[in-house]
Amino acid sequence: MRVLVLGGDGFCGWPTSLYLSDQGHDITIADNLSRRKIDVELEVESVTPIRPIHDRLAAWQQVSGNSIGFVNLDLATEYDRLTDLLTDLRPDAIVHFAEQRAAPYSMRTAETKRYTVDNNVRGTHNLLTALVTTGVSASLVHLGTMGVYGYGWSGSAPIPEGYLTVKVPTPDGELEREILHPANPGSVYHLTKTLDQLLFSFYAANDRLRITDLHQGIVWGTQTDQTARDERLINRFDYDGDYGTVLNRFLMQAAIGHPLTVHGTGGQTRAFIHIRDTVRCIEIAINNPPEANSRVLVRNQVTETHQLLDLAKMIGDMTGAEIAYLPNPRREADENELAVRNDQFLALGLEPTTLSEGLLAEITDVARRYRHRIDPRKIIARSVWRAGMETSPDLMTELPPE
Amino acid sequence: MRVLVLGGDGFCGWPTSLYLSDQGHDITIADNLSRRKIDVELEVESVTPIRPIHDRLAAWQQVSGNSIGFVNLDLATEYDRLTDLLTDLRPDAIVHFAEQRAAPYSMRTAETKRYTVDNNVRGTHNLLTALVTTGVSASLVHLGTMGVYGYGWSGSAPIPEGYLTVKVPTPDGELEREILHPANPGSVYHLTKTLDQLLFSFYAANDRLRITDLHQGIVWGTQTDQTARDERLINRFDYDGDYGTVLNRFLMQAAIGHPLTVHGTGGQTRAFIHIRDTVRCIEIAINNPPEANSRVLVRNQVTETHQLLDLAKMIGDMTGAEIAYLPNPRREADENELAVRNDQFLALGLEPTTLSEGLLAEITDVARRYRHRIDPRKIIARSVWRAGMETSPDLMTELPPE
Repeated sequence: MRVLVLGGDGFCGWPTSLYLSDQGHDITIADNLSRRKIDVELEVESVTPIRPIHDRLAAWQQVSGNSIGFVNLDLATEYDRLTDLLTDLRPDAIVHFAEQRAAPYSMRTAETKRYTVDNNVRGTHNLLTALVTTGVSASLVHLGTMGVYGYGWSGSAPIPEGYLTVKVPTPDGELEREILHPANPGSVYHLTKTLDQLLFSFYAANDRLRITDLHQGIVWGTQTDQTARDERLINRFDYDGDYGTVLNRFLMQAAIGHPLTVHGTGGQTRAFIHIRDTVRCIEIAINNPPEANSRVLVRNQVTETHQLLDLAKMIGDMTGAEIAYLPNPRREADENELAVRNDQFLALGLEPTTLSEGLLAEITDVARRYRHRIDPRKIIARSVWRAGMETSPDLMTELPPE
Repeated sequence: MRVLVLGGDGFCGWPTSLYLSDQGHDITIADNLSRRKIDVELEVESVTPIRPIHDRLAAWQQVSGNSIGFVNLDLATEYDRLTDLLTDLRPDAIVHFAEQRAAPYSMRTAETKRYTVDNNVRGTHNLLTALVTTGVSASLVHLGTMGVYGYGWSGSAPIPEGYLTVKVPTPDGELEREILHPANPGSVYHLTKTLDQLLFSFYAANDRLRITDLHQGIVWGTQTDQTARDERLINRFDYDGDYGTVLNRFLMQAAIGHPLTVHGTGGQTRAFIHIRDTVRCIEIAINNPPEANSRVLVRNQVTETHQLLDLAKMIGDMTGAEIAYLPNPRREADENELAVRNDQFLALGLEPTTLSEGLLAEITDVARRYRHRIDPRKIIARSVWRAGMETSPDLMTELPPE
């Protein structure tokens, strides 16, 4: 299958591109390298030493014999180049990762809020318009987030896969309606994913585009079988307060002797998925697109749910790390229940990678191996949801000796 | 009250600015004159001879003794000038009309789709971010549309004012939840108003902004007491296939002997409001903002509902005009019922201007008076929702002699 991976240089996009290439698909990456540029802006680096995109691609060609195409393209601002690319390539499937994807970054400043909305909405809408205009009939797979549903909204009821059946009162009784699950975004980033949902609904209905929206949990892990084949293929590992995700941050913190940073009570329950399962889910999604003339197909891309404090305690038990309770910069409930339906991917053959499989240690090892690349002053999350809120001072300013 | 009217040079914005000024409010208009520029692009003009903005403002000063400020500002692209304006002016209320507002225009081409999304989403989000950043505590009143609800979605149940109480199934029974009414937009333009709703919800919840979203019906009429005071104050009257609204188009068509253009069966039922009521509703809205820390206040800004064919027949009976049934360029149901709640504005003192009050004739008179400004080749709607769909040829290419 000919697959265009938008945002194929990022944390999910890169291992997905390699995995799909390894499965025999013909891959082209389009990426404007914005994620690397934001690292420059934030004065931080991936813990793992990721190589420039063309070095990565050359290494993959050497290791696998497969070549992956690359186009430096800004989806939000280079519409004409996008339509040219679609017309030239005529992909069978498009995987769309090309959005600013960090909630804390999206809440930092007026500029990052505006960038997140402008970049994500315009990029996604350009893509939809370009598909209509060019007549390219590729199915589109988009990375959404569990965060569109919010947490605790439906009490103990499991979160359905995108659509919710509700009863609506009428003068004569009740009407049953299946609706897109109400949006409850917790940040400007999550907000953009709820806007995407409405864009997709409209273009699926009006222009009959075939769209899958994957509502993904928090990704953990770093390496896949493909990225582990050569150090030049290594995937990025973000540990900073903006882009680092909670479980990977705990593992990195444990590896360098930093306390595990729990915001609030740690009673928040979230859904997780390993990066190895992300890449498998994407292939399942492109192999099983929605039928023609159907509504957007929503799949929940998660494998486990955990309360954050339980994760911190588990890692503390494994490593001896202490827990530091810090003020919560987000506006969210102290505690929530969370059950999520993920029947679709399980039925289509996904075999979940679970936390119990010893992979935690693997990540801690990655963090130990590259510990010299960590700047401890980048660990505390500084972005706040409420103007003027104070965050914790640094808990560590220099790496302790090994 | 100090009021900033964004988009104050447009069809609703101009009469609103004059009305609020006449009521003693201190008005500043910000507008980038985009509506006039789109007329240039479409090679069409308002039937009424609207004056340049500074001539309008000078005439109002002369007629009323009140001065209205003006800033040429593009909300979507001039963020820093926007924050400067907010900081300098510190308005008590902001009325936000500054969006591309025609459904057919939003569906014309890839460019107009992209412009509509980029302009409307960025402009609205810039405004929200700017209010947070500057700390200006103005309440915000936004012009939304009845089209966010869709038509026929809830059967014969009246459309509520923004929020819908539904029952959600749980493992133990049912949960009652009040949700934002599900979005069912019929065009890219309507889609942007559904995106706005999510932006507003987030900023009301996270940043405690006080926001009123007015879901307005189709506006008819041209003049208000203020715009009628001097010909230099006249309001715009759009008759073309992109910007003309259905009832005003019927009236214009009747005035020049053009058949009344009904798309499809005419069984579509829509909600209406006269421009005189629009301006009153805006004042009611700025005088009755939501309380601090509350969700977005949604009010339905409509006074009557009518089936389009009934309107055409009524105008046909009054004027002798024939009806032409043309292909429907939109994807919409042939027929729908529509009942709408508008209790809020009625309770706050709105006295609706109804079609039966002889105002139809007044509009026909406006159209007759300025008939020489009408280009009959601009009447047929050419924008289509489905690629390749054919529209009717022109039914009239030259104005008949008077």
